[in-house]
Amino acid sequence: MADLTGRSIIGSQAGGGGEPSIFGINPATGESLQPGYAAVSESELDQAAELAADAFEVFGKSTGAARAAFLREIANNIEAIGDDLAKRAPQETGLPEGRIRMETGRTCGQLRLFASVAEEDSWVDARIDHADPGREPVPKPDVRSMERPLGPVAVFCASNFPLAFSVAGGDTAAALAVGCSVVVKAHHSHPGTAELVGQAVSTAVRDCDLPEGTFSLLYGPGRETGSALVRHPAIKAAGFTGSRAGGQALMKLAAERPEPIPFYAEMSSINPVFILPGALAERSEQLATGLHGSMTLGVGQFCTNPGLTILDGNADIEPFVAKLAELVGGSPGATMLNPGIHSAYGSGADALGRNEAVERVALGQAEDSQCQAGAALFRTSADAFLGDESLASELFGPSTLVLTHDGTDKMLALARSLEGQLTATVHGTEADLEANRELLDVLEGRVGRVVINGFPTGVEVCHAMVHGGPFPATSDGRSTSVGTRAIHRFTRAVCYQGFPDALLPVELQEGNPLGIRRMIDGKST
Amino acid sequence: MADLTGRSIIGSQAGGGGEPSIFGINPATGESLQPGYAAVSESELDQAAELAADAFEVFGKSTGAARAAFLREIANNIEAIGDDLAKRAPQETGLPEGRIRMETGRTCGQLRLFASVAEEDSWVDARIDHADPGREPVPKPDVRSMERPLGPVAVFCASNFPLAFSVAGGDTAAALAVGCSVVVKAHHSHPGTAELVGQAVSTAVRDCDLPEGTFSLLYGPGRETGSALVRHPAIKAAGFTGSRAGGQALMKLAAERPEPIPFYAEMSSINPVFILPGALAERSEQLATGLHGSMTLGVGQFCTNPGLTILDGNADIEPFVAKLAELVGGSPGATMLNPGIHSAYGSGADALGRNEAVERVALGQAEDSQCQAGAALFRTSADAFLGDESLASELFGPSTLVLTHDGTDKMLALARSLEGQLTATVHGTEADLEANRELLDVLEGRVGRVVINGFPTGVEVCHAMVHGGPFPATSDGRSTSVGTRAIHRFTRAVCYQGFPDALLPVELQEGNPLGIRRMIDGKST
Repeated sequence: MADLTGRSIIGSQAGGGGEPSIFGINPATGESLQPGYAAVSESELDQAAELAADAFEVFGKSTGAARAAFLREIANNIEAIGDDLAKRAPQETGLPEGRIRMETGRTCGQLRLFASVAEEDSWVDARIDHADPGREPVPKPDVRSMERPLGPVAVFCASNFPLAFSVAGGDTAAALAVGCSVVVKAHHSHPGTAELVGQAVSTAVRDCDLPEGTFSLLYGPGRETGSALVRHPAIKAAGFTGSRAGGQALMKLAAERPEPIPFYAEMSSINPVFILPGALAERSEQLATGLHGSMTLGVGQFCTNPGLTILDGNADIEPFVAKLAELVGGSPGATMLNPGIHSAYGSGADALGRNEAVERVALGQAEDSQCQAGAALFRTSADAFLGDESLASELFGPSTLVLTHDGTDKMLALARSLEGQLTATVHGTEADLEANRELLDVLEGRVGRVVINGFPTGVEVCHAMVHGGPFPATSDGRSTSVGTRAIHRFTRAVCYQGFPDALLPVELQEGNPLGIRRMIDGKST
Repeated sequence: MADLTGRSIIGSQAGGGGEPSIFGINPATGESLQPGYAAVSESELDQAAELAADAFEVFGKSTGAARAAFLREIANNIEAIGDDLAKRAPQETGLPEGRIRMETGRTCGQLRLFASVAEEDSWVDARIDHADPGREPVPKPDVRSMERPLGPVAVFCASNFPLAFSVAGGDTAAALAVGCSVVVKAHHSHPGTAELVGQAVSTAVRDCDLPEGTFSLLYGPGRETGSALVRHPAIKAAGFTGSRAGGQALMKLAAERPEPIPFYAEMSSINPVFILPGALAERSEQLATGLHGSMTLGVGQFCTNPGLTILDGNADIEPFVAKLAELVGGSPGATMLNPGIHSAYGSGADALGRNEAVERVALGQAEDSQCQAGAALFRTSADAFLGDESLASELFGPSTLVLTHDGTDKMLALARSLEGQLTATVHGTEADLEANRELLDVLEGRVGRVVINGFPTGVEVCHAMVHGGPFPATSDGRSTSVGTRAIHRFTRAVCYQGFPDALLPVELQEGNPLGIRRMIDGKST
């Protein structure tokens, strides 16, 4: 195992060695893991942000090829410590080694996907409108524009993806791909994993001859360090994945800064799954099995967990519910990420069970030990759901609430009542779907991704993915945190008017030396 | 002249005929113009927003071709009332008829430009990642995504562009082009012009068989009606051009809503003009003439007005300053848009003149009558400017503050001290520019558009334009209010996973029936 130092990474330096206050905890045993991490001081945080601003002056002007090489170097470095990660991350998170190895692969694949986009360089959306000096009544100037990086970006690690949404996860990859320097705030739930990946990134910064402030990694208490980072004047955007309360608190800070900044929070989603009668009649057991797999995957600790399952009470739903209950009841207990998440799941599930309008249909097994969670299946009526907004809150864990309605009108009312979601899923036969186009329309207006005859978990990292959605699923429904569309989180268009060719960014020079796709006088070339 | 009714337009109905409280005022004479306009009631505003939400369900699904036809019909209708506009708008705004006719042309050109983009339809950024059912360890799903409209949009008219940034201006054109219904809040400064254009849009809604709520036009007091509109739950985004105070108040409301929404405000900018020594030596008189033309254009009432002119005191600057002073001193007075703007310009110019560090170099002529403003030329040192942030505030009107520095370091310090701006301009010879690449870099990071050897006024409506910039120039530096990039203000990407071809939006269907540009498996086609 690479040596863990218990230090923040401030550019090329280790953070000061104050009293360690942040320890990884093995959620399966309660054991405290070494080393402990000291919180950064105010001046260290300030230094990291100022170094990021300095680095941006250089890194923000780097070529796409240079950034691609850097991203690939990070991926290589992470792969090289795959065994260390597979050892440390399970200790800190309770996630099995296989999951960590898969997530490591996904993270490296994600870095390489962004590398390919940075290298190809057409993402800059270069546009050229040529001059017309003879135009009447006034000459037309030469106007060119392209996307440029925003500046230093703060990235908050997520507890539930210690790799793919953490130190070198999606937001970091997107920010680095466009030329934004990055200051990462580690999650207290997996500090050692964060340091391992931080060292991998830091080594790549050095080996690629980039300015030291291109990357820093800070440890500190959630609210204080996170708030200070979002408030820091050198930070020009931030990305966050976490709770609705945490996300909204930081959204507020970002909006209230003297200079407000874009703040991308992914917060909460119950990811409704609509099962239409034809599909239920055709493959009830298969649907129950698929839903059970999706709701218990990763101990239900995915933002796309299917928390709401909607059935037409006029159909023969009992075999489906019985099968799902059987599967839930037979599910083995599993360790959740940390005591906070475990306790929130426990109290949320208890509150649901105590709700008079809700039936607790089945509970999975769970040993009465540290952070063990059992799957849970609840059931209620559409009217109860529509009358009690607490039932639409996210319960983060391996559960789903089955909801029965009495027909299309009520189903549409349910769909219309939903807040913004990351996903909505519809299971249906061809005839079901044809007859329920209005449902698809309503859902499209409320979610980032509509899934047909699949399950919402398992977010594909690709060019077309949208992992976002209207508030409160995220703070900014115009954006995605997965897939290459995410690079536009951290860019803005800049316009160059009347520039001599040699002073233009290379992407906008007349001869198109990079051979990228551009819009010239309104035509894409 | 078409009949003015003094009524708001609530879908297909006239707003209630309450007591008229909003009157156009001829700024040249103080004369109150008929008819008066009653403020909308709360229930009328609510009705307009709800109609917009209803209309969005249909209009949001319309084809690009249908929206293009609608935008062209609006342009035709506006052209058909060109004479009425050329008569009424000058009465309300003090702007000369020629300017109104030019702005009418620009507005119709803008509508047709957005029509061409809507019709061509590639703006949706369609992406397709094909399935791979045999992929290990898990099958790859079929994932497709494209930009979709956000929902009903509130548009605030600007006082200084009664056509191009008002009822059927840039924000309205962008919103309608993508399928967002629009609720416009008229500006009290040109209510009759707003109604004339509102009727033109409303007629087009009817003639194109669109749902009535596709467009509404509301009159009311700035703060109350505007605030209520931004707060209305049916409104999903808003665009505003106006003062920093007004913009920031509405930004705050938009961020504090239970469901925060994107809010695009264009607020304030002093648009620095850097004149480098070589250029000054080569064409001092021409520069003074050009700058004078730009600073007095439209009585200085442009957001791109060059309010700050930066000279190197080591160069022979006096001929330039003398020429500019001569031109400013000889400028005839002109009528400003309304008493509020006139009085703010007067008090702002007085305060500058009283500032001990500022020299009042020249004042233009101005009769002591209603809303007459004279041009003004002020001068100070770089150190005074850096030490007094009031000097960096926008003075909206025909003035510029000349600022001399003692060389490159101070010039760069000045550039670095600037808040976000819409534009920055640099005049230089080839050698000047080559020697000042760092200045260009610094400016690029602080503005939406960098102009070389031109002037910032005269914003070209084209595909490459960026009329935006970092805060406080705008509320959201990622966006532009002019040019076709503006359509992305009112859209978000939506992802369709596992959809049968027939249920996909036509832009994402496998056969590409519209023949639009798409990204397929990562390759642009």
